[in-house]
Amino acid sequence: MNGSVIKAGVIHPGQMGVAIAAALASVGHTASWASQGRSDETVNRAEQSNLVDLLTLEALCNDSDFIFSICPPDQAPSVAQQVADLGFNGTFVDCNAVAPATTDLVSNIVTQQSGTFVDGGIIGPPAVKSGTTRLYLSGKSATAVAELFIDSVVDARVLGSSSGAASALKMAYAGWTKGSAALLMTQFALAQQQKVESALLEEWELSQPGLTTRLDSGCSSMAPKAWRFTGEMHEIAKALEDAGLSRYWFDGAADVYECLSDLKNKPDIQRKEVIDALLKTMNDGSA
Amino acid sequence: MNGSVIKAGVIHPGQMGVAIAAALASVGHTASWASQGRSDETVNRAEQSNLVDLLTLEALCNDSDFIFSICPPDQAPSVAQQVADLGFNGTFVDCNAVAPATTDLVSNIVTQQSGTFVDGGIIGPPAVKSGTTRLYLSGKSATAVAELFIDSVVDARVLGSSSGAASALKMAYAGWTKGSAALLMTQFALAQQQKVESALLEEWELSQPGLTTRLDSGCSSMAPKAWRFTGEMHEIAKALEDAGLSRYWFDGAADVYECLSDLKNKPDIQRKEVIDALLKTMNDGSA
Repeated sequence: MNGSVIKAGVIHPGQMGVAIAAALASVGHTASWASQGRSDETVNRAEQSNLVDLLTLEALCNDSDFIFSICPPDQAPSVAQQVADLGFNGTFVDCNAVAPATTDLVSNIVTQQSGTFVDGGIIGPPAVKSGTTRLYLSGKSATAVAELFIDSVVDARVLGSSSGAASALKMAYAGWTKGSAALLMTQFALAQQQKVESALLEEWELSQPGLTTRLDSGCSSMAPKAWRFTGEMHEIAKALEDAGLSRYWFDGAADVYECLSDLKNKPDIQRKEVIDALLKTMNDGSA
Repeated sequence: MNGSVIKAGVIHPGQMGVAIAAALASVGHTASWASQGRSDETVNRAEQSNLVDLLTLEALCNDSDFIFSICPPDQAPSVAQQVADLGFNGTFVDCNAVAPATTDLVSNIVTQQSGTFVDGGIIGPPAVKSGTTRLYLSGKSATAVAELFIDSVVDARVLGSSSGAASALKMAYAGWTKGSAALLMTQFALAQQQKVESALLEEWELSQPGLTTRLDSGCSSMAPKAWRFTGEMHEIAKALEDAGLSRYWFDGAADVYECLSDLKNKPDIQRKEVIDALLKTMNDGSA
């Protein structure tokens, strides 16, 4: 590995957080977490990945040079606040899918406590091999964070010294991938509700080759994760609004993913179940 | 050709209308239009296609067995009303991109005047050769209309006897093609406004192959036609809302296409000009 060994704390180790922690540990850094108040699922995941459990957030803050915040987007400011309240003055890397304005808010929380703030945005699946996952970083200390990942499976890339760039890239990228998947489900749901879904599939075969496959893979991959997408859709809506663009798209996308939240972690889910759930929940007015 | 020669009136012959009229004429039917009050551009287009000019809408209604309405979506009910007011009691085929509820409204206007209503939805470009363009038809007399196109370049397909199915298919189909193009422009505009567009293009090269090409071809093909998409976006929003789904998507899409309306018919337009126009008009609050 390059550079010095550092102590990294990860809040909270979901699938992505564990992957980031494992990448750091793989090149000699110490990767820790705090189990207090976390679910059995998270405990199991962290234990399987040999993360050091420092038990409390206080211990984690006291014993870390770098904190990586990887949590649901709507919790990003409160995680930063908890860390700041515990007097952390190392480098805080917010890796969450949040709007640049939320990044500013988190940055202010961190720096008011004399911490150093680095903006991060993760694109790709939880990394288990090289070449799948980029951690974009921006802000004055972005390079120092990127260097921690040298020789690991995480491709850390510095986007410049302006905080907010990494978040903006994540918003623009995820807005297409998650937004277009939800739009495609919505259009198919319209066809199904109007009893023209067979004709739509036939027309797609003729003029939109591959679109049926895209719908089906979107249904099976997105629906089980939908429960954690709603907050991200709100952040993308905010990012668009702040940029003077239309936020409506992601009010629509948030509705879709909220309607699918009951399908959480469901394996082998097929198109029909997803579209039925979307139509039923929308029509129940539950979202 | 199969079946009897009929007299068809087309209101109003834009590019798509002329293509439908030419397809009918190519298999021996008489295709007419009415030039009164139309633009020089429309007159030239109709003359080049050898449509019979019956001068007034009244003459067109008196002398046609079938009327094909092919107009901007927001004008569909008023075109039907004008035709009904002139006592037309033949078969009225509404080929416009409208919500099923708008189709019902048009159908009521037509049948109150003892006319026969057929719902139509066109998918594909103005047809000049076989295999590119489908005219979907639904309603009790859909088969009679489909038969008129036998051996022509227009692939007329009957979707069943329920009025509304052809419109619903068009809404579901166009919602994806036009909606996803506008969503992609919006996400790139966000990246550009945040000065991370180069990073987004690089990331797309890695993980979304073909997406840059898709953005560029969407910009050059959609922006010059954007001026006539806004009404269609409102109809798709209505179709979704009536189906119990989120209409927000197409409030967003309508905003995008409205912002691009000044680029009407502009040739060789490139990504940069489109995204700049989108950001500028959105931020001016003009849309």
